[in-house]
Amino acid sequence: MATFGLIEYEQASPEVRAVYDDIMATRQTGWVNNFWKAIAHDPAALRRTWLSVKEIMAPGALDALTKEMVYLAVSASNQCGYCIASHTAAARKAGMNEAMFAELMAVAGMANETNRLASGYQVEIDERFAPE
Amino acid sequence: MATFGLIEYEQASPEVRAVYDDIMATRQTGWVNNFWKAIAHDPAALRRTWLSVKEIMAPGALDALTKEMVYLAVSASNQCGYCIASHTAAARKAGMNEAMFAELMAVAGMANETNRLASGYQVEIDERFAPE
Amino acid sequence: MATFGLIEYEQASPEVRAVYDDIMATRQTGWVNNFWKAIAHDPAALRRTWLSVKEIMAPGALDALTKEMVYLAVSASNQCGYCIASHTAAARKAGMNEAMFAELMAVAGMANETNRLASGYQVEIDERFAPE
Amino acid sequence: MATFGLIEYEQASPEVRAVYDDIMATRQTGWVNNFWKAIAHDPAALRRTWLSVKEIMAPGALDALTKEMVYLAVSASNQCGYCIASHTAAARKAGMNEAMFAELMAVAGMANETNRLASGYQVEIDERFAPE
Amino acid sequence: MATFGLIEYEQASPEVRAVYDDIMATRQTGWVNNFWKAIAHDPAALRRTWLSVKEIMAPGALDALTKEMVYLAVSASNQCGYCIASHTAAARKAGMNEAMFAELMAVAGMANETNRLASGYQVEIDERFAPE
Amino acid sequence: MATFGLIEYEQASPEVRAVYDDIMATRQTGWVNNFWKAIAHDPAALRRTWLSVKEIMAPGALDALTKEMVYLAVSASNQCGYCIASHTAAARKAGMNEAMFAELMAVAGMANETNRLASGYQVEIDERFAPE
Repeated sequence: MATFGLIEYEQASPEVRAVYDDIMATRQTGWVNNFWKAIAHDPAALRRTWLSVKEIMAPGALDALTKEMVYLAVSASNQCGYCIASHTAAARKAGMNEAMFAELMAVAGMANETNRLASGYQVEIDERFAPE
Repeated sequence: MATFGLIEYEQASPEVRAVYDDIMATRQTGWVNNFWKAIAHDPAALRRTWLSVKEIMAPGALDALTKEMVYLAVSASNQCGYCIASHTAAARKAGMNEAMFAELMAVAGMANETNRLASGYQVEIDERFAPE
Repeated sequence: MATFGLIEYEQASPEVRAVYDDIMATRQTGWVNNFWKAIAHDPAALRRTWLSVKEIMAPGALDALTKEMVYLAVSASNQCGYCIASHTAAARKAGMNEAMFAELMAVAGMANETNRLASGYQVEIDERFAPE
Repeated sequence: MATFGLIEYEQASPEVRAVYDDIMATRQTGWVNNFWKAIAHDPAALRRTWLSVKEIMAPGALDALTKEMVYLAVSASNQCGYCIASHTAAARKAGMNEAMFAELMAVAGMANETNRLASGYQVEIDERFAPE
Repeated sequence: MATFGLIEYEQASPEVRAVYDDIMATRQTGWVNNFWKAIAHDPAALRRTWLSVKEIMAPGALDALTKEMVYLAVSASNQCGYCIASHTAAARKAGMNEAMFAELMAVAGMANETNRLASGYQVEIDERFAPE
Repeated sequence: MATFGLIEYEQASPEVRAVYDDIMATRQTGWVNNFWKAIAHDPAALRRTWLSVKEIMAPGALDALTKEMVYLAVSASNQCGYCIASHTAAARKAGMNEAMFAELMAVAGMANETNRLASGYQVEIDERFAPE
């Protein structure tokens, strides 16, 4: 259970319900996951975080599946159990199959390895890579 | 300069040169970036790391551009200066434009925020998200 | 259970008991939490860590509540489950209410987001921000 | 220089200028720091991030100084060079003196140490700490 | 259970079984731990990761026990629950006793503290420490 | 330069000088590195941190070289530029040669990779690994 409990739809204020409704409508689903019910204790944070997620995850220069996979790769890199579980589900819903998941994890794992090798060896940035 | 200096092609052993040659051939380019010249002090690590990167980053279930962007998002999340510079260059070469970069950073940034909210609020994983 | 088990007061050496006694006296409580019982396998580490925590967390230029909240924000940022649980309890005991917790998490979450945006965009430090 | 360069006020679109104006008005200052000029390449990200920062950092249940110090502690914990520099300046402007900075770092440093001890020793959460 | 379930020896393909056999032969043990059974969904990743681990963890300039302890210290620093558990077991099997574990955790914890103090205080690298 | 400047021996208080003297005597060297000169603004932190480092890094169940290498591996994993530079120097002084450094980085890099694979695949801890 979350720190201050979860706020279910039935007990939610109209302000919180409006966000829950928008989450379900945007995702075309009939339920709201625990993350939102936990931060609903702070209605301003709920609204602000949801509107940011909604705007950022909408298809744009990158499609929805790519965005979900990037979210999952970063969450795996940060080792956030909740986020790995929820974004694995979201990415699969968006079309990620088992082969794509495996390659995604391989890239995320490799990046974590070479990030440390580059830092540990104190590698200087090549002039060609310097931002112009 | 890297911890033990960079190993340039001219001074490299045949074993190291063979890896440098494969890096340039695979990337269709005429130079090798500092990362490889730094870890070349350990020829086994050079070979092993390059073969892993080559295998992982080859197009498969995910295309090369998506993989480069995931690599960049994880590197930005880990705040590895060298890796951000080198993989921004690689992703741009693979087709990432400015709008795609901006959306990629937005997703990576948002994931970092919500990862901590989920952990800080001690949110329990929804039963629906549990791996089957 | 901790790696090598927990050392309860009854089985503890006089050296370990002295630290447990000081923890309970300082915190004006009648029990010791698992963290200390786990590292008590290394009495030197137990004493050293406790004396550091005691000195650092005592009110000084910052009051005790602010310190507990900073400890919690860092623990949430690091995603340490045990530490989030124990320091949420400590901060609440020191006076943190639900609204303060929510704002604390919002700041910690936002910092995690903008930290990665600053790194990912390779933003140079403004001259005005350079330490004098 | 940032990845795609910095967008100065003079070259900025009206949409970007409006955010810059609000940053300067809110902070009662006559300049905008590089972070905003870098992400201004993505006007939606600029607006969204600024509005979130503005809302989150406004005094509420926590005062502005406490919020700036928490932001700095998390940035130091994440080792973001740019963010440490900018938020040290912001916290000092909000009233943080040298003694407060030193205690803030001490708490952040200690949290980072005990976070790893708790994880490394695999310490179980005390029942008393479980969220009710 | 892992995201896509665990692949047991009985259901494994000959390619996967060959890796399982090599793991058991190399470790002189009769079982394979869950990590390998989880990534076995991606036989290429299984083979590549195992061959890297096998090569890296073999005694060389550093002995096997030192390598296992470094692996554990990094895993504790990264707060990876699975890896802490599995590498604590591996390090103990390689000869790590309770006193060595305690000192290992003390060093890892201290490094995490001073890493943040160095970053937070924006300490410049001494000229004497610069790589030649 | 550090946030509030470095405190050189000549300008230091007797309390700070006593710590500097102990650092130089313990390390059998004639100078003090910037880290200590930076945190000397907080004499209590200077004393406390130095005494902890001195106690933790002294040979015990683990020898001095192993401890320095673990410190370096964790610092590389955390990507702390200052700490990587200073502890590379310290480890070399304690006897680490180039081959040992390379294997150390290989282990640290591999741990960072598999830590994320274990988390991303949501691998459950094997019963055999559970702390007894």
